[in-house]
Amino acid sequence: MEVQVWRADVEERVVTNEPVPASWEQLGGRSLIARILLDEVPATCDPLGPFNKLIIAPGLLVGHMVSSCDRISIGGKSPLTGGVKESNAGGSTGLKLVHLGIKVLILEGTPTEDKWWILHLNANGGRYEPADDLFGHGVYQTTQRLLECYGPKIGIALIGPGGEMRLTAAGVQNLDKDREPSRISARGGLGAVMGAKRLKAIVIDSSGGEKPPLADPELFKSAQKHYTKELMDHPQTASYTNYGTAAMTRMSDGFGGIPTRNYSSGTFEGVEKISGEAMRDLLLARGGASNPTHACMTGCTIRCSNVFGDVKGNNIVSPVEYETIGLIGANLGIDDLDAIAHINWELNDLGLDSIEIGAALGVAAEAGLMEFGDARRAMELISEIRQGTTLGRVLGSGAAVTGRVLGVGRVPVAKGQAMAGYDPRAIKGTGVTYATSPQGADHTAGLTIRAKVNHLDPKEQMEISRISQIKMAGYDTLGICLFGGFGFAKTPGSIRDLLKGRYGWDVGDDVLQELGRETLKLECAFNQAAGFGPEDDRLPEWMTTEPLPPHNSVFDVPNEDLDRVFDWT
Amino acid sequence: MEVQVWRADVEERVVTNEPVPASWEQLGGRSLIARILLDEVPATCDPLGPFNKLIIAPGLLVGHMVSSCDRISIGGKSPLTGGVKESNAGGSTGLKLVHLGIKVLILEGTPTEDKWWILHLNANGGRYEPADDLFGHGVYQTTQRLLECYGPKIGIALIGPGGEMRLTAAGVQNLDKDREPSRISARGGLGAVMGAKRLKAIVIDSSGGEKPPLADPELFKSAQKHYTKELMDHPQTASYTNYGTAAMTRMSDGFGGIPTRNYSSGTFEGVEKISGEAMRDLLLARGGASNPTHACMTGCTIRCSNVFGDVKGNNIVSPVEYETIGLIGANLGIDDLDAIAHINWELNDLGLDSIEIGAALGVAAEAGLMEFGDARRAMELISEIRQGTTLGRVLGSGAAVTGRVLGVGRVPVAKGQAMAGYDPRAIKGTGVTYATSPQGADHTAGLTIRAKVNHLDPKEQMEISRISQIKMAGYDTLGICLFGGFGFAKTPGSIRDLLKGRYGWDVGDDVLQELGRETLKLECAFNQAAGFGPEDDRLPEWMTTEPLPPHNSVFDVPNEDLDRVFDWT
Repeated sequence: MEVQVWRADVEERVVTNEPVPASWEQLGGRSLIARILLDEVPATCDPLGPFNKLIIAPGLLVGHMVSSCDRISIGGKSPLTGGVKESNAGGSTGLKLVHLGIKVLILEGTPTEDKWWILHLNANGGRYEPADDLFGHGVYQTTQRLLECYGPKIGIALIGPGGEMRLTAAGVQNLDKDREPSRISARGGLGAVMGAKRLKAIVIDSSGGEKPPLADPELFKSAQKHYTKELMDHPQTASYTNYGTAAMTRMSDGFGGIPTRNYSSGTFEGVEKISGEAMRDLLLARGGASNPTHACMTGCTIRCSNVFGDVKGNNIVSPVEYETIGLIGANLGIDDLDAIAHINWELNDLGLDSIEIGAALGVAAEAGLMEFGDARRAMELISEIRQGTTLGRVLGSGAAVTGRVLGVGRVPVAKGQAMAGYDPRAIKGTGVTYATSPQGADHTAGLTIRAKVNHLDPKEQMEISRISQIKMAGYDTLGICLFGGFGFAKTPGSIRDLLKGRYGWDVGDDVLQELGRETLKLECAFNQAAGFGPEDDRLPEWMTTEPLPPHNSVFDVPNEDLDRVFDWT
Repeated sequence: MEVQVWRADVEERVVTNEPVPASWEQLGGRSLIARILLDEVPATCDPLGPFNKLIIAPGLLVGHMVSSCDRISIGGKSPLTGGVKESNAGGSTGLKLVHLGIKVLILEGTPTEDKWWILHLNANGGRYEPADDLFGHGVYQTTQRLLECYGPKIGIALIGPGGEMRLTAAGVQNLDKDREPSRISARGGLGAVMGAKRLKAIVIDSSGGEKPPLADPELFKSAQKHYTKELMDHPQTASYTNYGTAAMTRMSDGFGGIPTRNYSSGTFEGVEKISGEAMRDLLLARGGASNPTHACMTGCTIRCSNVFGDVKGNNIVSPVEYETIGLIGANLGIDDLDAIAHINWELNDLGLDSIEIGAALGVAAEAGLMEFGDARRAMELISEIRQGTTLGRVLGSGAAVTGRVLGVGRVPVAKGQAMAGYDPRAIKGTGVTYATSPQGADHTAGLTIRAKVNHLDPKEQMEISRISQIKMAGYDTLGICLFGGFGFAKTPGSIRDLLKGRYGWDVGDDVLQELGRETLKLECAFNQAAGFGPEDDRLPEWMTTEPLPPHNSVFDVPNEDLDRVFDWT
């Protein structure tokens, strides 16, 4: 099966295939998105207009079910930040695309008619099918309908009502290995870009497809084996297996950095009720659908995901992640895991980023639209989004717009994108990442919480953010999950061998860093062409002046450091 | 009376005076604002935070009631555009400040308490008086209360509920010579900056003050006389005396450039009902309070303003200007002058920019929130602003936010600020001004409609915009009304003589251009420091692709030309 570039012109409703250009061959996932944006998308274009493209690119290692290495990157020019955007997810989308020989799927144009479509891809090519009957339906119901229609073996990337409404907090949902539409490419409003293209869903039927060939099967297999063992042996892996990302709840609170009541405190009095430990105990006690240990991708040995069930044994939502616990829990003063899980389902069904909406609700609470701690009111506000009221559209546009409209100055954003569950005044290296990442505030672009530094000291933060940003950009290019990194910690050469085994490329030991640096360089170039400059690589003014309890620290990493992050030559 | 810089620290509630720094001496109005912003305001600061300043600077010629030369400039970092902002107005504020020896009034800081204040200035200095009882009151009622309290001779600069709510379409109202709070420094959200400083009003009692001294009274008087005669003799002056700015209605429609139904057409079928000629006939026929010819400043011989009365002889609003006719009339499909006048009063009372709100309502109509032509519904939507509902706050945040929230792509803005009553696809030189002015889309920054060029031809537009922008920046520095320019058209040396006569400065014949270039240079420097680049000097993408009837033209002035506007060395 020849590896090709697939293009779907949603205006003309055609799908075409073409050879992979030489300059794209050794790129994948996040780096390929940046390259295509630079090559094909005018940097100053309207992100919801006809010149933006939605780019769906599996990472370079996707296709062989190596543990945690099958992630899908979705990208384009962000309608939230106005800059480059890549948002990756687990699930099965990447695997299915690769099995059809799709190096990258590029969605182009905007239709003139207000009709909705499904893009159906299989070994024979692509076709469009009418989807007006799916318009307005939530992600879960839409998924059910598509599975009934196209059979249980498909992959799906789809949007909910949030993307249909072109809300800039909307993401693209992907099926996990159990066909739950729970793996969201959440950040940066890519669901709105898909909505602007009037695509409700992309259905991927990979039957007749195949795993990509291996240049050196033996080398590949041995590298895979070595990596998997190292991953399983790493102490952190067990923690994620047991507690998932929710392990971060206590840790973030312990550092005084959990966002609490619209980032007004770094410690939450209700933290023990919403910790990973509390959630594991709860799920184990409940049994039934509940499962504290669950894999989102076939072959994943970490299994950091979970299934959150109710007392009767029914599934509420899968998974509940730390970022949602942080932003919907502590940040809204909500200490009830069931309430958080129900809100999480609602946001998943709407196809919205729970970080962005959590931050927007925190701002709304500060404006007096809800009391902190009132989960019922939070749900009411989210139902405004579903109804498409003006208030709902404001919230669905994210924290920056919510603050602007409601007249709230304390808005936790960088480049217009909400911060995740680590207050940059307490975890300052992550603050450097928020400020400088071409992606806008994004913990997955370079979290530093595990670095062995004093997180309150403004020194050294630039270096640890840089190291982390380069590494993450590399992982996002390869399709490796953040946690897969534990398996490469001692033997980075495994990445070299996996690439050699798969493609036959003669790459060096530091291929991860090389790919990361190349990716960041491309992304910075796109942002620069879009009009970004050093002034955009800053945190909000109030975070530099308003002390954060309990450490009463402000964000004080010098601007000179922020301006040197990508200056590594 | 010594000319000084007055500073009002609204946090400490003190007012201090200091000598004028040498580098500020030969600047005034718009240029002095730009200089102070560069000297004292961090370009990247939060416009509604403690580091922004509200700067109130009379033009250099203000103080002697030379016709049309007493304008006040109000400025700061704009919460609408994020860049430099100066918005000037007629009325009496400038005159009163100068008579107290105030070169510039700088408002600093933000109070920690949510209490409202009046800043009272007189010959003895400044003091703060509580104004919580005025909170929530409209501009007209507030003015009445202040006049009752402080006597009829005061000047006032004040905000309405829009500024209190820190809406980014809020301006600062100034009294005209008849104590009507009708001269609004409308653009760029400066009312929100004043609201962030919790100042409801600045009351200026200039009793005991005096006209500034003249270095050469004879030269000044003779220059004044020559200028006034030339102004009165200019054919355009009579047109403005008769029809005011509303004379532009037919002209703009004639060029196919009147904004109609959210900038979807450049010609309006109802234009004859809302033209300057129709308004003059109506006002003459009505009599009573109605007056088609009215001066906003003492000594103005043009008298382009008007008083719009109802059929019973009562005052509805003063004045009705072309921009309001264009944006509230044609742009909303409303062809009823009475309805436009009533809406105009409402917006004045709220202290809002009728251009920004007209554009926002056009976008809202496109989103389905009103039918074009439905004035009653437009008034309902404006009442949402007064009530402070979320929808009201969206509209009050201006056209760009309204488009973002409501999911409308056809938004007529540049640098986040709404365009005025000239569609840049039909009057392309003004499009160059909209795109490149450091102020954002602003016709007063360099209107080109009177230039003798083919307005549809993309060539030559850069040059005429540049000439106009330089001239206007000069006028705004001197305090000269746009229409005062007719009096300097044949004898530009009059400006030189007025400055020599007033200050004894040895300036050249092209002092207007020198001041204009210096002003633009300072403004560009501030914007650059705030993060603006060439990518911000562009019109919206859709205006470059969507043809405008009746000429079916798009905005096609090349980017290279846009990038050369300020490159005059």
